[in-house]
Amino acid sequence: MSREVEGRGELAVVLLSGGLDSAVTLAWMRAQGFRPTAISFDYGQRHRIELDAAARVASSLGVVEHRVVEIDLRAFGGSALTDEIAVPKDRDLAGRDGGTIPITYVPARNTVFLSLALSFAESRGARHLAIGVNVLDYSGYPDCRPEYVECFERLANLATREGALAAAQGRRHFELHAPLARLSKAEIVRLGTELEVDLGLTTSCYDPAPDGVPCRRCDSCLLRARGFAEAGVRDPRVE
Amino acid sequence: MSREVEGRGELAVVLLSGGLDSAVTLAWMRAQGFRPTAISFDYGQRHRIELDAAARVASSLGVVEHRVVEIDLRAFGGSALTDEIAVPKDRDLAGRDGGTIPITYVPARNTVFLSLALSFAESRGARHLAIGVNVLDYSGYPDCRPEYVECFERLANLATREGALAAAQGRRHFELHAPLARLSKAEIVRLGTELEVDLGLTTSCYDPAPDGVPCRRCDSCLLRARGFAEAGVRDPRVE
Repeated sequence: MSREVEGRGELAVVLLSGGLDSAVTLAWMRAQGFRPTAISFDYGQRHRIELDAAARVASSLGVVEHRVVEIDLRAFGGSALTDEIAVPKDRDLAGRDGGTIPITYVPARNTVFLSLALSFAESRGARHLAIGVNVLDYSGYPDCRPEYVECFERLANLATREGALAAAQGRRHFELHAPLARLSKAEIVRLGTELEVDLGLTTSCYDPAPDGVPCRRCDSCLLRARGFAEAGVRDPRVE
Repeated sequence: MSREVEGRGELAVVLLSGGLDSAVTLAWMRAQGFRPTAISFDYGQRHRIELDAAARVASSLGVVEHRVVEIDLRAFGGSALTDEIAVPKDRDLAGRDGGTIPITYVPARNTVFLSLALSFAESRGARHLAIGVNVLDYSGYPDCRPEYVECFERLANLATREGALAAAQGRRHFELHAPLARLSKAEIVRLGTELEVDLGLTTSCYDPAPDGVPCRRCDSCLLRARGFAEAGVRDPRVE
């Protein structure tokens, strides 16, 4: 599974969306001995029910602090997650190739989220960041690839006071952890189960009903359903 | 002076703070043939008079659009520019060494700004970004160095749909221009004068009076005064 690291009680800022992957990432960081602090983003997403899920996950797993930051990405437009553009349904995910990026892509979203998480981390004295991206079973987003994660870590150390001071002493200050980077959705479900994450608190749907019931037809619902099925685990969100 | 580039009427997103450097950057991009669109940030800065200056500069130089994005960096704390921490005055700037980063440093500020500018650029179909950072006469901020600018450009191309699609065809999509990177403040003043920028519209003070009158004692006022003096140009902001 994911490479083990020694948390030794160090503070770590974990991006928490309320979805399955970020919840398992938070639990994994805690299991490694980090003291997690969570950051979530209210960016005008259609599926704001996510933020309620993020609060429930943060409370259930135990965090030092859970901060929700507002950003107006909707002002820029251009994504089915923030605009009046229909979320695609019933797509054949097996037939995807790497060159196809879906309309649910939000321009530079993970870069905006990570840069704010970096600012938060530096102001809190945390040198660890964690994000639940993964490249297998991913929806074709470029900012989920390992080379992206590596480049952001390098940037973080060039961009900051703490990074520059450490570099002057030959050390690397910020570390960006992406423990799910090479796991399949089924492996993520199994890891979450092993870590005793209450997966029923998480929500993955891009286009839920007003009461939070998932549509079961968007890419995210389809990937989640396939992951639970392959793991042989019942999804507590779906009765 | 700055390396010439061919704008050919292409759209370019320029970070505009209302200060001297970003105004000259905007004018330079226009002079290269780009169609500039400006983005400014309301991040809880003490010197919000900057945003009025940014609007005046955008209007005076002519932009396709001027967007002001709110971000709550103040929530994170840790800087004299956003917190109830005193802005240092009357420092001996000649005595600074590269390892000293002042208390006016805002954690990861340029990374937050550039990531939002990148999201804006991709949503607008712009492939050029410009930022007025410079390494000579700079205040010791790590996110103003050329290696930082280069790393962000690389990240932008890994992070985005347009970047990934271009890379698959062996092309680089996003370009981050930092035309002032290696200019002294005196050279920036001269360049602005040549480009007929109304430098009296710009404001540089970290701690202005409520009516906008600069303090003349913070690092930014001192660097500006020295730049104008060395260029042999009268600062129209100072009577």
